[in-house]
Amino acid sequence: MINFKFYNPSKIIFGKKTEEDVAKEIKSLGKSRVLLVYGGGSIKKAGLYDIVVNKLKEENIFFCELSGVQPNPRLALVYEGIKLCRENQIDFILAVGGGSVIDTAKGVSVGVHYDGDVWDLFLGKGRHKNALPLGSILTIAAAGSETSNSCVITKEDGLEKKSYATADVIPKFAIMNPELTYSLPAYQTACGCSDILAHLMERYFTHVTHVDYTDRLLEASMRTVIDYAPLAMKNPTNYDYRAEIMWVGSLAHNGLLNTGRIGDWASHKIEHELSGIYDIAHGAGLSIVFPAWMKYVYKENIDRFVQFAVKVFDVNLPLENKEEIIKEGINKLEEFYKRIDLPVYLHEVDIDDKHFKEMAAKCCEYGPVGEFKKMYAPDVESVYNLAK
Amino acid sequence: MINFKFYNPSKIIFGKKTEEDVAKEIKSLGKSRVLLVYGGGSIKKAGLYDIVVNKLKEENIFFCELSGVQPNPRLALVYEGIKLCRENQIDFILAVGGGSVIDTAKGVSVGVHYDGDVWDLFLGKGRHKNALPLGSILTIAAAGSETSNSCVITKEDGLEKKSYATADVIPKFAIMNPELTYSLPAYQTACGCSDILAHLMERYFTHVTHVDYTDRLLEASMRTVIDYAPLAMKNPTNYDYRAEIMWVGSLAHNGLLNTGRIGDWASHKIEHELSGIYDIAHGAGLSIVFPAWMKYVYKENIDRFVQFAVKVFDVNLPLENKEEIIKEGINKLEEFYKRIDLPVYLHEVDIDDKHFKEMAAKCCEYGPVGEFKKMYAPDVESVYNLAK
Repeated sequence: MINFKFYNPSKIIFGKKTEEDVAKEIKSLGKSRVLLVYGGGSIKKAGLYDIVVNKLKEENIFFCELSGVQPNPRLALVYEGIKLCRENQIDFILAVGGGSVIDTAKGVSVGVHYDGDVWDLFLGKGRHKNALPLGSILTIAAAGSETSNSCVITKEDGLEKKSYATADVIPKFAIMNPELTYSLPAYQTACGCSDILAHLMERYFTHVTHVDYTDRLLEASMRTVIDYAPLAMKNPTNYDYRAEIMWVGSLAHNGLLNTGRIGDWASHKIEHELSGIYDIAHGAGLSIVFPAWMKYVYKENIDRFVQFAVKVFDVNLPLENKEEIIKEGINKLEEFYKRIDLPVYLHEVDIDDKHFKEMAAKCCEYGPVGEFKKMYAPDVESVYNLAK
Repeated sequence: MINFKFYNPSKIIFGKKTEEDVAKEIKSLGKSRVLLVYGGGSIKKAGLYDIVVNKLKEENIFFCELSGVQPNPRLALVYEGIKLCRENQIDFILAVGGGSVIDTAKGVSVGVHYDGDVWDLFLGKGRHKNALPLGSILTIAAAGSETSNSCVITKEDGLEKKSYATADVIPKFAIMNPELTYSLPAYQTACGCSDILAHLMERYFTHVTHVDYTDRLLEASMRTVIDYAPLAMKNPTNYDYRAEIMWVGSLAHNGLLNTGRIGDWASHKIEHELSGIYDIAHGAGLSIVFPAWMKYVYKENIDRFVQFAVKVFDVNLPLENKEEIIKEGINKLEEFYKRIDLPVYLHEVDIDDKHFKEMAAKCCEYGPVGEFKKMYAPDVESVYNLAK
């Protein structure tokens, strides 16, 4: 176990009807001028928009709106949000939606008081000074952005997808009502679960030894996603199934489960290039990239992959045949993805090898990716090839 | 799963030499006048006292001392600390020690700005208004007080042991260096592990259904304590063993693992009467009370006790024989306690039935205890009798 710091001051407000507390929570933070960030019409259809707006009005909270956030959220909207905040003396950002909405809000949060181009921050060319505080009402269990310290934004020009992390963008509160996820289509539910599982696996695959406790917590979390994803897809309005997934989704990415260890994150970066170019759902990109990454890197740490197969997927083959155990573990992971109707190969989503070289080069533009195995452009290209 | 709020803004600073950060952390909170709370000479012998004091001096932080905290910490010392804080315009309390030291600091924290007798708070006759912020340097993995919102204080007169809880006493930071626990005698290590396990079991035994994720996290945590307690006792200076236990100890009691569920806490209260009168170590009292409580209450929820036996102790008997599985689970729990040299019956620590009635009556003075089964005085007496 390596030395670590862990600090996550997000207040979780979890359960039925908790969205009704939103204005009270903003008020209790001493804030009164809100930028309301959301996506398309889904929160209007579901009635959530009306609830939020009415609650804000009841508490005499001024608000203006930044809507139209798309999956793989774009930089242009971040710029627009920054402008709105500056023009309206906004003192709090409320994100109502999933990871893309919350990430957009975070981009705005660090950009408002930054003198230069906010994209500098994502390129590692600058650090923000002050961030506007934000809160979240979650409508899909997936990205974990509702309590995390990071955000991912895509620049239209060149389709670059980059992340930025700071404790300052951890939402002050995260309102999580599993009922708000009832209306999600099965495919989106599956993509969300794939993202959650990926966040857990990125943390699980480490060379740091003596991390048994967090290993056990990660395995418990992975098993919960694997158990409940198919159930939630089949029974979309089952509160308990949605609740289990929603709570795992947050803990998977709030920093707790990587305490004392070093995560990998190559697969996320390899996937970002895919969904940057092809606009494939992040969760579907991950279900393709992760098994291929595993096939490419497992020899780096045989024991860890054996443990994954045994502890997460109950692979019960004789321990002397480690390669077989590992293959069976990866096989079971693929079976899980298939069970929730996600692709495991690129050809299933009509992506061919045309941009492999270009994506691999861009993925490693700022150096190799990954900690479990340092992946240079040829390594990344090999992963794309294994995923063909 | 029931609705819940979770908020734990404690900053964890975990690892080797982290105690050297203490003054910097206090400074970063804008504080400069410290009450340093500790127990006896052990932190002086270990050199920790000198490190802390030198770091405070280096940063020009004023401090005065409240020392002599004993296990089952006493109200008199809380009064003394309150007086010291008032006389010296203290703005921060630093607790260096285990649960008793940190609980004393918390008692002082809520008492300083309270006009009446601080004991009122523990009797439920008042609420504090402002609390002094505090931080902790942990020297034993046990009570979880280093990041929890509660404290337990014993009043000498009548030997009453009472608790008080508020988010305001969650330490602003918790410095956890497993090396600081190397010098603990095996018996204290065992008692600490027993306390941690009890915190997990108090949360585990609930009638709230659909709490699978927190069940899995609790089982992972219990198994880690059960695996590592004997190893840490045999290898007291093994960093990794100490580290696993220390991190479980905090997460066992910081509020995370009871999200969405209702804990029991009867066993803690039944034990508090024991250690209130007999000055037996809390962990040793718990290893006696818990199996007896289980034997008395298991019929309230057969399935939950079966799950405990199967998931925590790998009991592998046919599922149709639930009573046998449960008995085997409790048996394995007792075996674990014996393996770490803790008592499981009162006669082992020379306690007879002389005070059973009196302790049971006092335990239920303010109403029945426990949520899993509401325990009235005769129930509590039955548990003492089962533990004879």
